[in-house]
Amino acid sequence: MTAVIIANGSYPRHAIPLAHIERAEFIVCCDGAADDFIRRGGRPDAIVGDCDSISPENKNRFADILFRESEQETNDLSKAVRFCVARGKTDLIIVAATGKREDHTLGNISLLLDYRATANVKMITDYGTFTPIDTYTEFSSFPGQTVSIFSFDPLPLTFSGLLYPVENRVLTNWWQGTLNASTGTVFSIDTQGRVVVFQAFPE
Amino acid sequence: MTAVIIANGSYPRHAIPLAHIERAEFIVCCDGAADDFIRRGGRPDAIVGDCDSISPENKNRFADILFRESEQETNDLSKAVRFCVARGKTDLIIVAATGKREDHTLGNISLLLDYRATANVKMITDYGTFTPIDTYTEFSSFPGQTVSIFSFDPLPLTFSGLLYPVENRVLTNWWQGTLNASTGTVFSIDTQGRVVVFQAFPE
Repeated sequence: MTAVIIANGSYPRHAIPLAHIERAEFIVCCDGAADDFIRRGGRPDAIVGDCDSISPENKNRFADILFRESEQETNDLSKAVRFCVARGKTDLIIVAATGKREDHTLGNISLLLDYRATANVKMITDYGTFTPIDTYTEFSSFPGQTVSIFSFDPLPLTFSGLLYPVENRVLTNWWQGTLNASTGTVFSIDTQGRVVVFQAFPE
Repeated sequence: MTAVIIANGSYPRHAIPLAHIERAEFIVCCDGAADDFIRRGGRPDAIVGDCDSISPENKNRFADILFRESEQETNDLSKAVRFCVARGKTDLIIVAATGKREDHTLGNISLLLDYRATANVKMITDYGTFTPIDTYTEFSSFPGQTVSIFSFDPLPLTFSGLLYPVENRVLTNWWQGTLNASTGTVFSIDTQGRVVVFQAFPE
């Protein structure tokens, strides 16, 4: 069973992340997202965070599913991931994690690399999907799909099935990995470093 | 004289980037931003890019300030920066560079590190300012300002004047550098690596 985590960024507008929320069997709201989700008619299975930004009304109404974690060493998204993993839910889709302050966007994308150790995690935005990897990985795709590859370590990468091939090369600048494109229905990335792969939705 | 570059992301909504556009003595629009800026009553000094996304009407009306560059090795933002530098304009403010596809946001933020070699460049979003550095740098601030520090190289950093001090330490995860805060009117970062510093606007 896949759990969907609704983070504190902009609520999704695109049909794909909205469908994941719609179909989810288990939904965890980060603290700051709960009011918005509930106002839209949603019913979270759990609300996780320091719970200082949820309305008194919802705090009371949803008291039985409120999991307060006030430590400041991690953010609400990391607390929600930890909550899911502790309950055996390790297939996770994160939505609403971008679209507001850019430092939160950057932080949340890089945190995917940490979550990988304990969960099978993807982030779905209004524009596409981010997947963290650290080993040879094959991706389902479609011809022409925009693929952007962000390398967090100075370690070599090899792409295959992409329009602009890379062979055992370190990408020192993120721009170098952006705006590649899939040539078929599968592509692969080989690396020993920490890499986040963005696959854009069809336009 | 500072030149303002309007990139292809979301048009600014916050008063601070809008004031930079308003007061600019020289405005360069990336190709894809020109129609939007002109519709809002703006009058660019130059339009730079592959010019495939500007309307036929504006293409004709602004033909004298259209600088077409169709090479695919860089994006429109890099072309606009290069255009300014070639004309001796090396104090650059970039706006509208975030807020749409996240891979563009990440690419544009990382490109600041490249621009640094030829220009004094800042990116101003609806939430704050990004500044690229690669040496000891002091920043004007205000007590309590949120400061997020993104390190692109595995090299040590030292912060001073921030709530959570770092002393000669490599930040391997971007989350580790986010959500710091200035304790006074100046803070400093010492590094030999490539670092992008985000300073949030007052709330």
